[in-house]
Amino acid sequence: MRVLGVDPGLTRCGVGVVDGVAGRPLRMIGVGVIRTPADAPIGDRLVEIERGLEEWLEAHRPEVVAVERVFSQHNVQTVMGTAQASAVAMLCAARRGLPVALHTPSEVKAAVTGSGRADKAQVGSMVTRLLRLDAPPKPADAADALALAICHIWRAPAMNRLQQAVAAHRTTKGRIS
Amino acid sequence: MRVLGVDPGLTRCGVGVVDGVAGRPLRMIGVGVIRTPADAPIGDRLVEIERGLEEWLEAHRPEVVAVERVFSQHNVQTVMGTAQASAVAMLCAARRGLPVALHTPSEVKAAVTGSGRADKAQVGSMVTRLLRLDAPPKPADAADALALAICHIWRAPAMNRLQQAVAAHRTTKGRIS
Repeated sequence: MRVLGVDPGLTRCGVGVVDGVAGRPLRMIGVGVIRTPADAPIGDRLVEIERGLEEWLEAHRPEVVAVERVFSQHNVQTVMGTAQASAVAMLCAARRGLPVALHTPSEVKAAVTGSGRADKAQVGSMVTRLLRLDAPPKPADAADALALAICHIWRAPAMNRLQQAVAAHRTTKGRIS
Repeated sequence: MRVLGVDPGLTRCGVGVVDGVAGRPLRMIGVGVIRTPADAPIGDRLVEIERGLEEWLEAHRPEVVAVERVFSQHNVQTVMGTAQASAVAMLCAARRGLPVALHTPSEVKAAVTGSGRADKAQVGSMVTRLLRLDAPPKPADAADALALAICHIWRAPAMNRLQQAVAAHRTTKGRIS
């Protein structure tokens, strides 16, 4: 399974591509950051993010796009920008018919470090180890994008089983009613 | 000036096109709502909104797109959806090189009713009167999109003067330093 992880943001949007299946060694295919100038109009920034993501999708052809699920308990202005950048990521994926998976920051941390409350350094260090890199990817947004992709590869089997169970339940209910 | 007003939302995204200049009677060119099913994956919903907006842009060729500025003091889940739908609207506009103008709900209410705290019914009633319609556009999202377009037509001259003043100030500063 090839996953593009996206850590959405207007100023820095982290992107990372990882190949792998649960229980086997993972392989990093690419990592980077799409940056847009803070003083540019918001519409233009979203267009630049779209262009950047299209390049990554075109170059690496992932089968799934994993995006960080945005919560609004943080700083209001940042959350809006994050929600807008994540919308562009989900749009680009869905337009290509790719499934979009959302994982919360604590799910990602728990998946790669074992603790949902791990700090940035711990996440960076585990990503480095799991992908056998020489140093943690910089900036943190790039490492977070790889962590999202890893999280998805590891959680996907369980998520698929859950979806199948829900679908089976719905079918059964449909038959009864 | 022809303005496409967008009242962003995932379930109902209001769209309204108005022709006019400040101080002259306004003309409604079109009004509608782009709907997406609440049980569809978020990425697919954003693709449907993009497709709907592209049809409106293509059919009516506005010169400006006015989008409601999203705040996060409301319900968290709704705000995320609104921010995501507004990102798609800003992206579609900017991709065509169209300027994007953001107006807050209270700016819109103040522009069309004289009060920033007017209710939905008052906004609908003023939109009906200003555009000489037979009845208030339904649902409220459609009326709000028209109100946004009207607000932009009326506020644009002042906004342009402000932008020119800021640009002039920057040029002066640039010369001095």
